[in-house]
Amino acid sequence: MPKIVDHDERRELIVDATWRLIERGGFERATMREIAAEAGFAHGALQRYFPNKESLLAAAFVRAHTRTNVRAGAALPTLRGLAALRELCLEIMPIDRERVQESRVVVAFWDHAVQDEELWNAHRENALHWRAQMGQFLREARDDGELVASVDDQIVIDQLTAMNAGLQIMCLLMPETTTRERLLAQLDAFLDTLRVPASVV
Amino acid sequence: MPKIVDHDERRELIVDATWRLIERGGFERATMREIAAEAGFAHGALQRYFPNKESLLAAAFVRAHTRTNVRAGAALPTLRGLAALRELCLEIMPIDRERVQESRVVVAFWDHAVQDEELWNAHRENALHWRAQMGQFLREARDDGELVASVDDQIVIDQLTAMNAGLQIMCLLMPETTTRERLLAQLDAFLDTLRVPASVV
Repeated sequence: MPKIVDHDERRELIVDATWRLIERGGFERATMREIAAEAGFAHGALQRYFPNKESLLAAAFVRAHTRTNVRAGAALPTLRGLAALRELCLEIMPIDRERVQESRVVVAFWDHAVQDEELWNAHRENALHWRAQMGQFLREARDDGELVASVDDQIVIDQLTAMNAGLQIMCLLMPETTTRERLLAQLDAFLDTLRVPASVV
Repeated sequence: MPKIVDHDERRELIVDATWRLIERGGFERATMREIAAEAGFAHGALQRYFPNKESLLAAAFVRAHTRTNVRAGAALPTLRGLAALRELCLEIMPIDRERVQESRVVVAFWDHAVQDEELWNAHRENALHWRAQMGQFLREARDDGELVASVDDQIVIDQLTAMNAGLQIMCLLMPETTTRERLLAQLDAFLDTLRVPASVV
């Protein structure tokens, strides 16, 4: 039996290979056999780590969100309020190649998550985590006097969640509308509608 | 050879069956054989209308957008400016069962459109149509003095496009956040940020 560390490393290698295949041709076209070959594993060996395609898709999705959360975790502790809200969105939005890659995996995952309870729950757990973070940042912004009084936190969270999710498909189907410059303009214009004008502070 | 009208009717029946199967279990799990059976066709007969699954997915997607545009076409001619912009968004947003069904088809389509040029173009054509309509409504709103002077039309179109797309997946994965009431609150809060306050008009 391999050591724990090897087991985890091998799982990582297989998820790497899955990401590459999703990026190249979508998750549907890849077979377990192709994924094994791409990762340099025998077909039978792959199944010791991932018994089926759903379990691989779940692992690929979890990694996309882990990457986002690791980046956010590095930046967020120094921020609060609207600056923290902006930072969290920037880590989710497809502003560079790394994040566009993550979007590709997430979009492949969505269609399956609609039909599969385990995948549905994996999405949910992460989505609720982001929503809770957004709620905290909005409360901080209110405490700090940054927020326009009439802002409804739940509405803002709904809007940002929808916008962030929509951009993950837009960067793949309408990439000319999701240049880094346009994404920043879009996010900052939205945040400006929440912010008490500088002259009033 | 069947009459043209029969040909179109049969295509419609097959697309109906495809929608039902997508709703029940996703597009991936349906085979051409199952789609034929669901539509009441022999497998060979199906292929005279749709040579492969991609062509069926394209037809299912085009119908989702046609339905949206038919509804919008009934309401839009009487409206302009921000009222027209609101109406177009309401036809796209998953505010009722009919529109949630359309979202299910669209989400199944997205993952394939990323990899398939023909499907990619089908998405694009419709997306550009909506963007052009939004641009026209924003110009009307500006002409009518409804719009805050600093509003950037392209940014608003990017924001609404992302929000509308994101809601199509949210209504499937986080349905409790996309009740009709919350969708209307979200849309109206956004439109209010564009609108010159009533007291100023």
